[in-house]
Amino acid sequence: MSEYDVLCIGNAIVDIIAQCDEAFLIENGIIKGAMNLIDTERAELLYSRMGPAIEASGGSAGNTAAGVASLGGRAAYFGKVSRDKLGEIYTHDIRAQGVAFDTSPLAGDPPTARSMIFVTPDGERSMNTYLGACVELGPEDVEPVKARGAKVTYFEGYLWDPPRAKQAIRMTADLAHAAGREVSMTLSDSFCVDRYRDEFLDLMRSGTVDIVFANSHEIKSLYRTSSFDEALAAIRKDCRIAAVTRSEKGSVIVRGDETVAIDAISIGELVDTTGAGDLYAAGFLYGYTTGRGLKECGDLGSLAAGLVIQQVGPRPRQNLRQEAQKVGLIR
Amino acid sequence: MSEYDVLCIGNAIVDIIAQCDEAFLIENGIIKGAMNLIDTERAELLYSRMGPAIEASGGSAGNTAAGVASLGGRAAYFGKVSRDKLGEIYTHDIRAQGVAFDTSPLAGDPPTARSMIFVTPDGERSMNTYLGACVELGPEDVEPVKARGAKVTYFEGYLWDPPRAKQAIRMTADLAHAAGREVSMTLSDSFCVDRYRDEFLDLMRSGTVDIVFANSHEIKSLYRTSSFDEALAAIRKDCRIAAVTRSEKGSVIVRGDETVAIDAISIGELVDTTGAGDLYAAGFLYGYTTGRGLKECGDLGSLAAGLVIQQVGPRPRQNLRQEAQKVGLIR
Repeated sequence: MSEYDVLCIGNAIVDIIAQCDEAFLIENGIIKGAMNLIDTERAELLYSRMGPAIEASGGSAGNTAAGVASLGGRAAYFGKVSRDKLGEIYTHDIRAQGVAFDTSPLAGDPPTARSMIFVTPDGERSMNTYLGACVELGPEDVEPVKARGAKVTYFEGYLWDPPRAKQAIRMTADLAHAAGREVSMTLSDSFCVDRYRDEFLDLMRSGTVDIVFANSHEIKSLYRTSSFDEALAAIRKDCRIAAVTRSEKGSVIVRGDETVAIDAISIGELVDTTGAGDLYAAGFLYGYTTGRGLKECGDLGSLAAGLVIQQVGPRPRQNLRQEAQKVGLIR
Repeated sequence: MSEYDVLCIGNAIVDIIAQCDEAFLIENGIIKGAMNLIDTERAELLYSRMGPAIEASGGSAGNTAAGVASLGGRAAYFGKVSRDKLGEIYTHDIRAQGVAFDTSPLAGDPPTARSMIFVTPDGERSMNTYLGACVELGPEDVEPVKARGAKVTYFEGYLWDPPRAKQAIRMTADLAHAAGREVSMTLSDSFCVDRYRDEFLDLMRSGTVDIVFANSHEIKSLYRTSSFDEALAAIRKDCRIAAVTRSEKGSVIVRGDETVAIDAISIGELVDTTGAGDLYAAGFLYGYTTGRGLKECGDLGSLAAGLVIQQVGPRPRQNLRQEAQKVGLIR
């Protein structure tokens, strides 16, 4: 018996989200569409230049855990916050969504991580992340019962940025595989892939990771190619399943010789792409851990991603299970 | 010369906003559509039962100040936060919107005020406000230069809840009137009207307040009548101008014998009514302080209110000036 469908591990981050124009990104040296890592001073500088914002719990894998739970799946989460106001907000939000979250918070500094997310009129988000307490996540935070008890463990490539999180990942993956479970990751960001290309390829080729989530930029970065088809052919050989999102073109899932193309859902207004990939993974993994075929997994991913990009913030305000029932993806 | 178009005074509150169903309100004894005052213990209890939330700066008059600034008006604000994380967020957001905000924050307890806002599927918001640092706002927080320098001073009826804010209001109104300015208030909430009916009527009849904003429930509560027409006839005599909002029926503005009916704008999806009245006042006061007629003032109010109810949170993410330009209300 599994205790959880999906265990997610990631940087526990509160998002601070504001609108800006294209010029703002250029003037402030923010790489558009990317996750830019920043230190305390730059965080203060950017906040002083940022427009009125809203705050929402985020963090890539945290969003995925919330999405799995919103679909009715049993989700757990490992991530490090501090014992401060943002940490309290983070803990509230993920638990209120029904996710099991018990990582012990830091008693003092550094404070809970935050990412200043600038959303341009085209809906694209550019993130500026101060890692804060996330740098303290380590193997001591692995809860073996959850690592062994989840059908799939899912983690962020972003976890290669803090110093010791990768040790927690390797330990969790070992526990999971020893219990006959599967391990999954997202490549997170094309610049992140560029920082850790060899390590990510090794995770896949060594079988530490079974299922890979990525977007088209990330797989092209992984294989240093400008050809999507070439990158897709390569990733097909390097992991058991790869699910690759392509924005409005939908997604493509490959497993051995099998290829499944998934349409994006049609949307009204594209408001904010924050959380799109995270919610795609949530839909897919909910489908996968409930025994659905790849097509249904992808359709659930498309639905969850399509809903989150029509609103500000990284986690859909709707109950995803009800939304999936409306379109017949869950009975 | 005026230094500001509108000076707003209110409870400085960070909103914590979540969706809930109708049953949740009943089970938790929350009066639907109202501002429910709560203490520390009830705040903790409700937060423990609240779903995943987002945080956004709010406070009725703070939202109005932000709206005036977003329309291109010169706005100032008096309100009390504490020197904590929510106070920092509040201060950032209102200043980032271009509002002059210099009220000195409290050094310690109580913490910055927060309101847990539950939004039901019909878009109605039910607020649960812990006043925190707001109880410390007093006459020592009145900045005479701003009180004398703003064309209109606008304050919340809600300020009768904390103990000494009303002293600040009376002092500001005296300074404003002595400088030849006008003073305006919102009746805030029908239960608030019920708590302070005689004082509010006295503010109007004594000429302390020139312009009154209210919704139909509030004026009916003020005059203890179930007849909207009767209440409107009464308020017409008690203040120089009254602007009364009627949800999807638009609003009606009365000045002496004059009556101006304003349509609501047509909207797509009603998401969250939080901020509707505040933004109506923002549009109206921007128009009024830039010398527009009552019809244009009301249309600007309808536009700003119509935009904010199509999104989660109390302040529109759009630049209101640009939105008003799109429909020809600002050139």
